[in-house]
Amino acid sequence: MTYSLGMLCRTGAAFLSDSRTSAGMDNITMRSKMRVYEKPGERVICIMSSGNLSLTQATLALIDDDLILANNEPASETIMTPQTLYETARYVGTKVRAVEKRDRVALEADGFDFNINLIVGGQIAGMTPEIHLIYPQGNSIHATRDCPFLQIGETKYGKPILDRGFNYETSLSDAVKFGIISIDATMKSNVAVGPPIDLLCYEVDSLVANLRMRLDEDDPYLQEIGRKWQNGIVKLVKDMPAPDFTKPSLGFATAA
Amino acid sequence: MTYSLGMLCRTGAAFLSDSRTSAGMDNITMRSKMRVYEKPGERVICIMSSGNLSLTQATLALIDDDLILANNEPASETIMTPQTLYETARYVGTKVRAVEKRDRVALEADGFDFNINLIVGGQIAGMTPEIHLIYPQGNSIHATRDCPFLQIGETKYGKPILDRGFNYETSLSDAVKFGIISIDATMKSNVAVGPPIDLLCYEVDSLVANLRMRLDEDDPYLQEIGRKWQNGIVKLVKDMPAPDFTKPSLGFATAA
Repeated sequence: MTYSLGMLCRTGAAFLSDSRTSAGMDNITMRSKMRVYEKPGERVICIMSSGNLSLTQATLALIDDDLILANNEPASETIMTPQTLYETARYVGTKVRAVEKRDRVALEADGFDFNINLIVGGQIAGMTPEIHLIYPQGNSIHATRDCPFLQIGETKYGKPILDRGFNYETSLSDAVKFGIISIDATMKSNVAVGPPIDLLCYEVDSLVANLRMRLDEDDPYLQEIGRKWQNGIVKLVKDMPAPDFTKPSLGFATAA
Repeated sequence: MTYSLGMLCRTGAAFLSDSRTSAGMDNITMRSKMRVYEKPGERVICIMSSGNLSLTQATLALIDDDLILANNEPASETIMTPQTLYETARYVGTKVRAVEKRDRVALEADGFDFNINLIVGGQIAGMTPEIHLIYPQGNSIHATRDCPFLQIGETKYGKPILDRGFNYETSLSDAVKFGIISIDATMKSNVAVGPPIDLLCYEVDSLVANLRMRLDEDDPYLQEIGRKWQNGIVKLVKDMPAPDFTKPSLGFATAA
């Protein structure tokens, strides 16, 4: 399993992903789910993937092959050529569809789903930052001011903290903290999601991917965040008022 | 969908459940998932259910029918006769199996799973409080000091807060607060889980089910908890240290 998260805010975008791949309890490995394609001053594109590892690797291989082939054919389409983020997402979608054509029948013959989801986000010069989610069918949706984050993989554990605290007006610095806590919560509740955390913090109009980190399990910063969060929410709960059972309440279905 | 939660701690047990039943987006109704069977001084048994509404109602109907029939046959087995919580859970499991015999084939013929899970907990005089989770197969597991809570239904959204803060040594009063926040987080992130929240707070050796509440959506206490939690965690995140991107980090898979 995987958990990847793209967050859009007024001052930029944050991308976070875990690095655990599991093909059964006895086959857990560490693989980054995040790729960054960058041409400083022109575009920054971040791709994160979840699903069947063979499918996500195949899709990225097709994207990378196009870049290599473009050395000989400069006019060909690559991840670095679309003029908009939407067309970039469509381009990635065509690669998902190409892999689908190759592999779906063989996978389904043995009971495996055609399971792949991608987040593609970033900024192209002259455009605003965008984040898109690409489905296994190759089509996509994108984040908006009202729904400013997109998740793929093991999405549920880390959603409440974002629903509570993150919105489009959240500062990029705070967005990163919300993202780390969202991933950390997921890692704590599900062993299929694990460190290190890959993080790209993208400042609007910077057109450079220089704010990047990989947070390993024993990273002092990640440990400090985890410890402060745990102590903080326990204190917060203890400081809550207790329910008053003496007050009249609505009816119950009591038996016996 | 449903979310129900049983929490075991040294000083008692807390039971919480939502009240939303959905059979499609256009068929959402309010139904309590919690039943309490009580004989003060002898036993308190709380049952919470999730899954197919027809199956959970059928199981509870068999349990209630036994109680009615026992008026004529005082020696017959009912939810109120086992000497231990484990045997109580097994008794409920036999009812699940009886419903399975009646309904599984017909359900599966139309593509419906035989989907029912129950939490059965409480205390019988002379025994310690216990909480059991009963599977669709009628077998069960029970909460322990190391794993002191059991969830059924839409379990993921509300698990991180429990993983972070609740353990067997948590006070019963704080356990209730953790439970309310766990359910409230789930309601906020998933429309298939909704108010009112049914709550039974059981104090060890009280053998009475007098600490009960039903918290509706506009209940001032529930609103206060939600507001304080939201404000508290946003402040907590803002007070966290920001990541230092100038520090050397592990390698990345960068392309282009």
